[in-house]
Amino acid sequence: MTNLKAFQDYYPEAFGHCFGCGAENPHGLHIKSYWNDDANDATIAFYTPQPYHTGGYPGYVYGGLIAAILDCHGNGTAAAAGYRFHGRAMGSLPALRYVTASLQLDYLKPTPMGMTLELHARILEVTARKVRMELWLTAAGVVTVKAQMVSVALPPSP
Amino acid sequence: MTNLKAFQDYYPEAFGHCFGCGAENPHGLHIKSYWNDDANDATIAFYTPQPYHTGGYPGYVYGGLIAAILDCHGNGTAAAAGYRFHGRAMGSLPALRYVTASLQLDYLKPTPMGMTLELHARILEVTARKVRMELWLTAAGVVTVKAQMVSVALPPSP
Repeated sequence: MTNLKAFQDYYPEAFGHCFGCGAENPHGLHIKSYWNDDANDATIAFYTPQPYHTGGYPGYVYGGLIAAILDCHGNGTAAAAGYRFHGRAMGSLPALRYVTASLQLDYLKPTPMGMTLELHARILEVTARKVRMELWLTAAGVVTVKAQMVSVALPPSP
Repeated sequence: MTNLKAFQDYYPEAFGHCFGCGAENPHGLHIKSYWNDDANDATIAFYTPQPYHTGGYPGYVYGGLIAAILDCHGNGTAAAAGYRFHGRAMGSLPALRYVTASLQLDYLKPTPMGMTLELHARILEVTARKVRMELWLTAAGVVTVKAQMVSVALPPSP
């Protein structure tokens, strides 16, 4: 995490309203994603669930929240991967923004409440139109959820 | 929807704190699921996203929210299917509660903001331990997201 500016902080204001990761959304979760210095093709984000983000299983995190934060970390990662693929500086215009085409989540074990979770992504494939990734979530070093994701680039906007 | 009491309203208080569908969670989304009278094996829920539930694509619903509400509709459906499979009355104790084992989402097209969404599930397979379903979301009658889900029963609690 040598760069303290998150991928999402490069989004133009018009794209900054995402509930999961938009800096402009006062009600949102504000996921912030970074390159992981430990690997060339991997990214990382951190999130501490609120006490009300519990799931049906008391003491554990709501699975829907996990889906949401992995989704945002994946689309942020896709944007970073897309800018790199095209040899462009992060944040240069027109904005490169991605949306989820598919997300496959495998909940391996309950994710405990009361700690900061790590969200990881590894880039598997980048083309001009899409980014394919594997993602995983760890709680106290234990992988509790794994995911596969495909993000597709939106048409360029002004 | 002949029965006005939702699946989630049968959850014991201890299981009612889920952010997505718990009646006891004041911060939550309060998803409520019902049998769909049009089919023996299908369920339905309705949800109107809040204005701040926008995604990265302006005017459209946040994909993470869609994952969350489908997840809760699926687990509510699994509980109803489980009670029926075991020939038990909804809400009888010990509580039959389900958690997500896997969720595969395909975002077919953007889901517009500003309307009530319909969440659908169809039960494909029920065993003593799990329920397999297909789910889909419609906005103004158009299917925008499809999903496959496996929910597994939690061990019985007092």
